[in-house]
Amino acid sequence: MRHILVVGIGSGNPEHMTIQAINALNSADVLFLPTKGAKKAELADIRRDIVARYVTNPESRTVDYAVPVRRTEGQSYMQGVDEWHAAIAEIHEAMFRTELGEHGTGAFLVWGDPMLYDSTIRILERVGRRGNVAFDYSVIPGITSVQALCASHRIPLNLVGQPVVITTGRRLADSFPDIVETAVVMLDGEQAFQRIEDPDAMIYWGAYLGTPDEIVISGRLSEVKEKILATRADARTRHGWIMDIYLLQKGTDFEE
Amino acid sequence: MRHILVVGIGSGNPEHMTIQAINALNSADVLFLPTKGAKKAELADIRRDIVARYVTNPESRTVDYAVPVRRTEGQSYMQGVDEWHAAIAEIHEAMFRTELGEHGTGAFLVWGDPMLYDSTIRILERVGRRGNVAFDYSVIPGITSVQALCASHRIPLNLVGQPVVITTGRRLADSFPDIVETAVVMLDGEQAFQRIEDPDAMIYWGAYLGTPDEIVISGRLSEVKEKILATRADARTRHGWIMDIYLLQKGTDFEE
Repeated sequence: MRHILVVGIGSGNPEHMTIQAINALNSADVLFLPTKGAKKAELADIRRDIVARYVTNPESRTVDYAVPVRRTEGQSYMQGVDEWHAAIAEIHEAMFRTELGEHGTGAFLVWGDPMLYDSTIRILERVGRRGNVAFDYSVIPGITSVQALCASHRIPLNLVGQPVVITTGRRLADSFPDIVETAVVMLDGEQAFQRIEDPDAMIYWGAYLGTPDEIVISGRLSEVKEKILATRADARTRHGWIMDIYLLQKGTDFEE
Repeated sequence: MRHILVVGIGSGNPEHMTIQAINALNSADVLFLPTKGAKKAELADIRRDIVARYVTNPESRTVDYAVPVRRTEGQSYMQGVDEWHAAIAEIHEAMFRTELGEHGTGAFLVWGDPMLYDSTIRILERVGRRGNVAFDYSVIPGITSVQALCASHRIPLNLVGQPVVITTGRRLADSFPDIVETAVVMLDGEQAFQRIEDPDAMIYWGAYLGTPDEIVISGRLSEVKEKILATRADARTRHGWIMDIYLLQKGTDFEE
C-alpha cells in the first residue's frame, strides 16, 4: 500500500527540524512541495532549504503542485473551506496515483505541526473516503509558531497551573480577558488585540518567527499596541506578506 | 557572563530532538541532570540516552542534582509551588556558582517544551532576582506531549477555525464541554474525564507517549471511559508511575 508521511517542519528556522522528521523525509520516494504564489515565495524557499540541507536519500525526488486559492465570496467561511479542501483532495489523489508506485512513500512538509491550524490530515481523510486510491499515513510532529514565540520571548505559555486558549482573531473576544488569563492568537487578519481594552493585559507579539527577519515586541498592551500595529503594517508592505502570532496574558503567578 | 540554555528535549522519543536542541547541548560546558527518585528512573534514563546519543562535544560534562520534593500538606497549592520553586532556585544558584566558570554555559534538558507546564524559566527568573550570580539564558523549543498525542492518534488538535483549551484535570470542568469543543488535559491526577457526561464527547488518550511503552486509546468517551481507567490503573501498577494526557472533543468540522 502507498504510505504518506505528514511531516511537521517547524516554524521558519530550519534547525527546528527533528531527527524523526529528517528520517521521515529520507524514507520518502517523493516529497510533495506546494507552490503558493509569489507572495509567499519565502515560505517555499524555506521548504526547499530544508530538503537541500537534510535530504540525503539519492532516490528521492520532489514534485511541485499548485495549491488552489480558497474562494471567499458568495459563501460562508465554512462552505469556502469545505470546497477548498475538496479541491485539494482531488489534487492529492491524482498525485498519489501518478507520482507514487503502489508501494511508494510520499511526504508532505507541513509548516509548524500538522495538528495545529493545518488541514493536511483532514484532507488525507477526505482522499481516503473518496476510495479511489489505497494508502495509509503517519504524522510526525514539528515545532509550532506558539513554541517559537514563547522561546523568543523566553516566557512560559501558561501561568502556574492555569489553562491556556489557542484561538483565532475572530474568536479572541469569546475567551480573553473574561474566560481565561492566557490566550494565544493565530490566524488573525484583523489584529483583534487592538479591540482589547484590559489595562492589565500584556502582549507578546512576533512575526516571521524563526527566520532572519524575525521581529518581536512585548509589553503592556495599552502601551505597545500602536507600535505593534505600525511595525506590522510596515513589515507587511516591505515583505509583501506577513505571518504573525501573539500571546495575551493578564494576572501573575502565585496569585490566589 | 554565564549563559544558561533551557532546552526542550521532546516527549519520550529521543528522535523528537531538534537540530537546534542538539546544537545547544553540544555548546554547553555542563549538562544539569535532575534526579527525581526511583519511581521516575525511566525519565532520567531518557535524558541520559539523549546525552549519549547526541552530545559529541568532548569538553562537556554532566552534573546530577537532586530535585527537592514539593510539600503538599499544611498549605495551599500555590504556596506549596512557590516554596518549592524557591528551594530549586537556591540549588540552581549554587550550581551556577560552583559548576560554571564566569563565562561558562550550562544546559537544562526539559521534558517536552519549556513553555508548557514547566517552571525552569520561572525558576531562572527567580535566580536572577536574587542577584547573587550574573547570567543570561536562552530557550530552545521541544515537541510537547500534546503534539505526540495528536501525532499518535493522527488527529488535528482543533476543529476547523475553532479554539482549543489546554488545561489541567482540576480545571477541566471550567471549559469543557460548555465553553470550548476541544480541551487537552495535562497534569490530571484524578482522571477528570470520568466526570464528563456529554454523550457527544470523544476522547483521545495516551500514556508513556513516544516511548516503547506507549499506550493509546480513543473512542466515544461514554464507551471507552472504563477501558481507559482500567488500562491506566494497570499500567501505573506495572511501571510504578504514569504520565498520561488526553484530548476531549465534541462536534465536527464544517458544522455551522
